[in-house]
Amino acid sequence: MDGKSSNNTAGKPIRCRAAIARKPREPLVIEEVIVAPPKHREVRIKIICTTLCYSDVTFWKLEHPPAIFPRILGHEAMGIVESVGEGVHEVVEGDTVIPIFLPDCGECTDCLSQKSNLCTKFPFKVSPWIDREETSRFTDMNGETLYHFLFVSSFSEYTVVDIAHITKIDPATPPNRACLLSCGVSTGVGAAWKTANVEAGSTVAIFGLGAIGLAVAEGARLCGAKRIIGIDVNQDKFEIGKKFGVTDFVNSRNIGDKTVSQVIIEMTDGGADYCFECVGLTSLVHEAYAASRKGWGKTVVLGVDQPGAMLSFSSFEVLHSGKTLMGSLFGGVKPKSDIPILIKRYMDKELQLDEFVTHEVEFDDINKAFDLLLEGKSLRCVIWMKK
Amino acid sequence: MDGKSSNNTAGKPIRCRAAIARKPREPLVIEEVIVAPPKHREVRIKIICTTLCYSDVTFWKLEHPPAIFPRILGHEAMGIVESVGEGVHEVVEGDTVIPIFLPDCGECTDCLSQKSNLCTKFPFKVSPWIDREETSRFTDMNGETLYHFLFVSSFSEYTVVDIAHITKIDPATPPNRACLLSCGVSTGVGAAWKTANVEAGSTVAIFGLGAIGLAVAEGARLCGAKRIIGIDVNQDKFEIGKKFGVTDFVNSRNIGDKTVSQVIIEMTDGGADYCFECVGLTSLVHEAYAASRKGWGKTVVLGVDQPGAMLSFSSFEVLHSGKTLMGSLFGGVKPKSDIPILIKRYMDKELQLDEFVTHEVEFDDINKAFDLLLEGKSLRCVIWMKK
Ligand SMILES: [Zn+2]
Ligand SMILES: [Zn+2]
Ligand SMILES: [Zn+2]
Ligand SMILES: [Zn+2]
Repeated sequence: MDGKSSNNTAGKPIRCRAAIARKPREPLVIEEVIVAPPKHREVRIKIICTTLCYSDVTFWKLEHPPAIFPRILGHEAMGIVESVGEGVHEVVEGDTVIPIFLPDCGECTDCLSQKSNLCTKFPFKVSPWIDREETSRFTDMNGETLYHFLFVSSFSEYTVVDIAHITKIDPATPPNRACLLSCGVSTGVGAAWKTANVEAGSTVAIFGLGAIGLAVAEGARLCGAKRIIGIDVNQDKFEIGKKFGVTDFVNSRNIGDKTVSQVIIEMTDGGADYCFECVGLTSLVHEAYAASRKGWGKTVVLGVDQPGAMLSFSSFEVLHSGKTLMGSLFGGVKPKSDIPILIKRYMDKELQLDEFVTHEVEFDDINKAFDLLLEGKSLRCVIWMKK
Repeated sequence: MDGKSSNNTAGKPIRCRAAIARKPREPLVIEEVIVAPPKHREVRIKIICTTLCYSDVTFWKLEHPPAIFPRILGHEAMGIVESVGEGVHEVVEGDTVIPIFLPDCGECTDCLSQKSNLCTKFPFKVSPWIDREETSRFTDMNGETLYHFLFVSSFSEYTVVDIAHITKIDPATPPNRACLLSCGVSTGVGAAWKTANVEAGSTVAIFGLGAIGLAVAEGARLCGAKRIIGIDVNQDKFEIGKKFGVTDFVNSRNIGDKTVSQVIIEMTDGGADYCFECVGLTSLVHEAYAASRKGWGKTVVLGVDQPGAMLSFSSFEVLHSGKTLMGSLFGGVKPKSDIPILIKRYMDKELQLDEFVTHEVEFDDINKAFDLLLEGKSLRCVIWMKK
């Protein structure tokens, strides 16, 4: 195709609707915007549906850099290729794709390796631009530049994304399920599957049963974990957790003078084989590390604390415990090769995705998705661009 | 045998010579001592030879608890079973054994597991006693109790050790090689082999080329590492390192304004696959972590810093790097099952042990072994109990 296309819009700017974050913490405003055609190695996508992830909320709330406004947020989505820029051979107009914030160039040492999902050619960063040349494909009706978010910006009927951030998927996948794999659910499932590589029959402790924590449970369940302990301040999380394989629950507000790690160590007679921190508090990382089994316990850090937050461990404890501490971005999932595996496992009815979707709204009601997430009422709220 | 034996000394106290640490930093004093017979599940060993390890020096220098005096130090050794206490079925009089500071009860979850070498039944600690009942088997000629060290106390012609701390070995093994596997060399080789499980063809960086660091190199060499980078302040370490597979050397006093991690990252085009900290400085642990390859780098902490030393990492770095931090006691080596494997690999001329022995002295000259280690002149000085 190489930049040429048979449709009416290819090569031209598209005028469409987008939800713009104009100021921190203020409701998004749906406006008409101009989406430029895709440049070299870029793809313009018609978004079918998108979902709201905590990172959107974090950058919507944040008043200082790396926050920037006006911006088109959104990074969990599913769409159809509208047109492709020059040099794009991987997808063509009409392909079903999901955009992914983490790049996969397919060429560098990391992308070619099975051990890493951290592309060297395009190191991950929270850029306000689509590319290295620091340009945007979005302008509002006053000609003002609108910033990109996480190389995706899916809160728009059309968006432009670098091919490194595009994964082609089975077009039979329901859009409101496919979009879940674009970020949060893949991160959680991947943390159990790829990063920790949970062994069948093992015991897992998950700190925080939000969408990511529940996705870790789902990943651990798929890996054959025998016991999955959820830890949360909200007792209601046990019921929803059971759908994803959670077998035991610790209400961390209800353990008296004990620490969570003491409770887990008692429950498991020594500690969990795998601990996952999904809240983003350094204090919980320490509890997770303490709750992991001496000798072989692995602790995976998934949450992001405030910038500058430090994790401190006694060197004696690290040395004498035989424990492992691991970090994981996007759950160690490789966008182009692992996501199709997860899609297939969903289509084969092995991976559960349906239960993550607690709400669905139309694009006009996108701010309702923010309210639901902020109130802790939703796991994932699917936002449909068109009825 | 069960406590009964045909030799003359079984069941009776033995009067023999031991090198006693009476005060911190003062030369050991060779005196006659009384070694009581082994009690239930204990073994009395005639030490053939012993070597000096840094932990002996650490506890010899230390003025405050956990240091205690008068004490019989020494924990790297090889000997022959003189007699066994009640309930010992694993070894008999005349067996060739090495005592090991780390217990292996053979019964608990950890000892039965292939994943851990940290016995739950007898948790590792630096006890001044031989047992839970807090008793000693040593008295001096004034009837004063002499304290044990690391459950071994090998600076004595005879010592008593719990069977959990005894590994039976091939009697054909040269004594002055076997003793090396009792602590330091096993720790280093094990860190590469068992803890990190170094992949063939990979790149390894070793911070500190003392005996432990060189043993890590030897372990990495055995695992098939392609490139082994040694880092030390002493340029002479490169020549000795080459014997153990070190291919590259960084003199950390000779890198100008760069940090060691910057140098390693440049040399390896992104970082080493495995980094080992063998000095015991938290600052070096951070350099090692920074020098490990993003995406899959593993950092193994082997050194012990001052009590209370803390390791601090930015939570962002841990999360976004995909790196792993691991601790390792005794290199993850399981005393009863892995040591015989290492012995066999030595006998098969695969594992190099000879080059670790830089000096050999008679028992009367044991203080010379301290001098040589303190002056940085020896890797291992073998101390022969009898000429
Ligand atoms: Zn790449
Ligand atoms: Zn996200
Ligand atoms: Zn045990
Ligand atoms: Zn030692």
